[in-house]
Amino acid sequence: MKEEKAPEKKPQDKPKENKKKVEDPLKDIVALAKRRGFVYPGSDIYGGLANTFDYGPYGTELLRNIKDLWWRAFVREREDVVGLDSSILLHPEVWKASGHVDSFSDPLIDCKQCKSRFRADQLVEQIAPDAPKGMSLDQLQEWFTKNQTQCPTCGSKGTFTPPRQFNLMFETKTGASGQDMTIYLRPETAQGIFINFKNIVDTCRVKVPFGVAQIGKSFRNEIVARQFVFRTREFEQMEMEFFCAPGTQAEWFEHWVQYCMDFLIRIGLKKENLRVRRHEKDELSFYSEGTVDIEYNFPFGWGEIWGIASRTDYDLKRHAQFSGKPIEYHDSEKNEKFVPYVVEPALGLNRLMLAIICDAYYVEREGTPEVRTVLGLAPGLAPVKVGIFPLMKKDGLAEIAREIYKTLAPYFQVEYDQSGAIGRRYYRQDELGTPFCITVDYDTKENNTVTLRERDSTKQERVKIEDLVKILRDKVVS
Amino acid sequence: MKEEKAPEKKPQDKPKENKKKVEDPLKDIVALAKRRGFVYPGSDIYGGLANTFDYGPYGTELLRNIKDLWWRAFVREREDVVGLDSSILLHPEVWKASGHVDSFSDPLIDCKQCKSRFRADQLVEQIAPDAPKGMSLDQLQEWFTKNQTQCPTCGSKGTFTPPRQFNLMFETKTGASGQDMTIYLRPETAQGIFINFKNIVDTCRVKVPFGVAQIGKSFRNEIVARQFVFRTREFEQMEMEFFCAPGTQAEWFEHWVQYCMDFLIRIGLKKENLRVRRHEKDELSFYSEGTVDIEYNFPFGWGEIWGIASRTDYDLKRHAQFSGKPIEYHDSEKNEKFVPYVVEPALGLNRLMLAIICDAYYVEREGTPEVRTVLGLAPGLAPVKVGIFPLMKKDGLAEIAREIYKTLAPYFQVEYDQSGAIGRRYYRQDELGTPFCITVDYDTKENNTVTLRERDSTKQERVKIEDLVKILRDKVVS
Repeated sequence: MKEEKAPEKKPQDKPKENKKKVEDPLKDIVALAKRRGFVYPGSDIYGGLANTFDYGPYGTELLRNIKDLWWRAFVREREDVVGLDSSILLHPEVWKASGHVDSFSDPLIDCKQCKSRFRADQLVEQIAPDAPKGMSLDQLQEWFTKNQTQCPTCGSKGTFTPPRQFNLMFETKTGASGQDMTIYLRPETAQGIFINFKNIVDTCRVKVPFGVAQIGKSFRNEIVARQFVFRTREFEQMEMEFFCAPGTQAEWFEHWVQYCMDFLIRIGLKKENLRVRRHEKDELSFYSEGTVDIEYNFPFGWGEIWGIASRTDYDLKRHAQFSGKPIEYHDSEKNEKFVPYVVEPALGLNRLMLAIICDAYYVEREGTPEVRTVLGLAPGLAPVKVGIFPLMKKDGLAEIAREIYKTLAPYFQVEYDQSGAIGRRYYRQDELGTPFCITVDYDTKENNTVTLRERDSTKQERVKIEDLVKILRDKVVS
Repeated sequence: MKEEKAPEKKPQDKPKENKKKVEDPLKDIVALAKRRGFVYPGSDIYGGLANTFDYGPYGTELLRNIKDLWWRAFVREREDVVGLDSSILLHPEVWKASGHVDSFSDPLIDCKQCKSRFRADQLVEQIAPDAPKGMSLDQLQEWFTKNQTQCPTCGSKGTFTPPRQFNLMFETKTGASGQDMTIYLRPETAQGIFINFKNIVDTCRVKVPFGVAQIGKSFRNEIVARQFVFRTREFEQMEMEFFCAPGTQAEWFEHWVQYCMDFLIRIGLKKENLRVRRHEKDELSFYSEGTVDIEYNFPFGWGEIWGIASRTDYDLKRHAQFSGKPIEYHDSEKNEKFVPYVVEPALGLNRLMLAIICDAYYVEREGTPEVRTVLGLAPGLAPVKVGIFPLMKKDGLAEIAREIYKTLAPYFQVEYDQSGAIGRRYYRQDELGTPFCITVDYDTKENNTVTLRERDSTKQERVKIEDLVKILRDKVVS
């Protein structure tokens, strides 16, 4: 669970926007993402469905690479973490126990004139930055009545409906039996882990301390969604719940904050674009012992990408209470029973991808024949590791290039391209973040060598075809 | 799209059940799946949510391995296929164009007495196998009235409601603007590919013939769901739409039928448990030129795991019509425009996983000290590649085993286990499908060798620790 979305708290993870009004700071990123097949607007040919996105061929490979690296670091390389893949559709009691049914909501108002919808608390903050924070529904209503607030869209005055709580969970019905049952699309993957704690302990020989990691889609019916894929109605989470003995949670908390930060550095994010923000006491949920946001310096300002929270034994105890089944861990060595404490690092895949693209994006205007746009992705993340080009289609060059393609394809994500000037093919791969390109030319036919061109330096060297797998493996595999 | 779920057709993919009444033929598989952390009932501690399942640590790894092998075979190794990751939430017009809003439904009846719900057509078939197939709602109602049918649950007569069409799409509402909009959870991933055809052609230098592949969750509000994970409300699909020039579709259709069958053999399914069933003319949707099911011989009978359909230009034309945007492909070499034809291999991940487990499961009663249950998974699929055990925790054996764990973890999925008799540890790994186990014993301290034990033969050999990575890589990597 993103703790700041916990029932008792209001969202804190909105980016701290730069106050000066500028052109969309993400404009170039959004344009590149669409032009190069990373991210398309959702349901594009139908005019779009607000705040949904489809990931094109290169975006899909980038997402896969991020997920694989995360899974490797958080599951495969950890003796103390196992994976899980729980349902999006869970029993509705789960969301009563978690508090989402009662309190996972935003205060909304509609303009009766133009039908625009706003988050009441955000509108107040926008109009009157000095107004008190955390107003109740009644207080909000009083404020709007007193101020005869103007609708930012149509300019009408006093046309707002009273504010009301709007639950962020998507609701649907399942027709299992004669009685239809209202169920929800999960707003987070975390609860699926908590409710499987006992099954995992009973079947998988895990011993506290241990973690359960999960990658999967979650859904929130956000009214105000912004900044491209930073906040979307459908999104993918990479969450881990780490169960530890009471009294050890503070130490584990610091361990995971450091581990998460190390991961971001390891996959190539620049250190100066990352910071750790510790929540103040008054930002914390009542059950939380501490929360840290790892924030990234997006073009629109600092925004949270990873929340690490020390959640105590709150969640397991709530599910024990609501399910009527005891959830305890029996430590056979010490022969004692306890309810484990939980440390949760919760990461949003889509906003991490956005951070990665922003971090890698640069434009070179000097020293190159034309403006060169580059995604300087670490090789492990790059959707294509190697572009393979014949200088010309004719004279047997295409055939040699295809042979190289077949040799490399079992090891790396490769792409073959035989159309257009060679410089343009390089530039296209630069925009995709491809770290290496191979060109087959007339010398290749003489001496079985090709040029190997590196993305950032644009330097080329001649290497033997037979050495390619080894050379690239050393450079590409992280 | 599973063609047999196409609007104009009734489902054909229900397994052909054995007629004799026997104990649940999946009983042992279901028990193993839960006992060994592959599949748990969904929302288990809340008494379950009908027809949902959560995948435990080993099931999750198995699913990941299947997806990776499929992605490798259908995207990475194919120069002519790219990936996509489109939204679960799409614009509602998509499902009007596809025909799902109007016709993706089953005829249902409820017993007014006991509230049980049934598929009217299936109930008729069950009670009167010789009754005419494909009755309309009116005909069904007439049949039930005439026969004063008894409710199979409570035995009441004449207590059924009139049959009504029940759409299988889960509905929800998005609160994007003042007007709430009804949207659907996608019942298939295919439409997300069709509506992105133009974006992909415009941004990714693909040339017809080419395919777009996608892995993702889909949802169907099935009333009658059966056979463990064979049919579930939430499921994962691996679909590919292959776009080709009109006139070439028959050839490509045969190509993909063969390619899919080869894939299943390559990942280890037994040839004798697979068959190809070609749909008869009268089973086909009106727009379809041909459909083949690859069926697996499940313990409950033959059931479809892969549908390959020749869908003509129907889908792209429908989306052009409903979106008002032309969808055409311009062949620059021949300088002609056309709407591509589509061949679609659609695979259900969860039922493929069930087939894999059923295929791999065997029990040995002879020649072993006790009954030995084995999942004979191909190494590429196995959730754990290597189990690593110290014979005893003491005398430094555990430390050596942990060192070996660290050496192997970057290459393989490994598991460390130091508790219980060594034979029981082997047996546990056998049930998980682990192809190899390493035991560190007192000889290890003398000569740096360990025993390497193979799952199926249970044969052991002594090998040097320093050779382990190479030996295992040769055996495990497919």
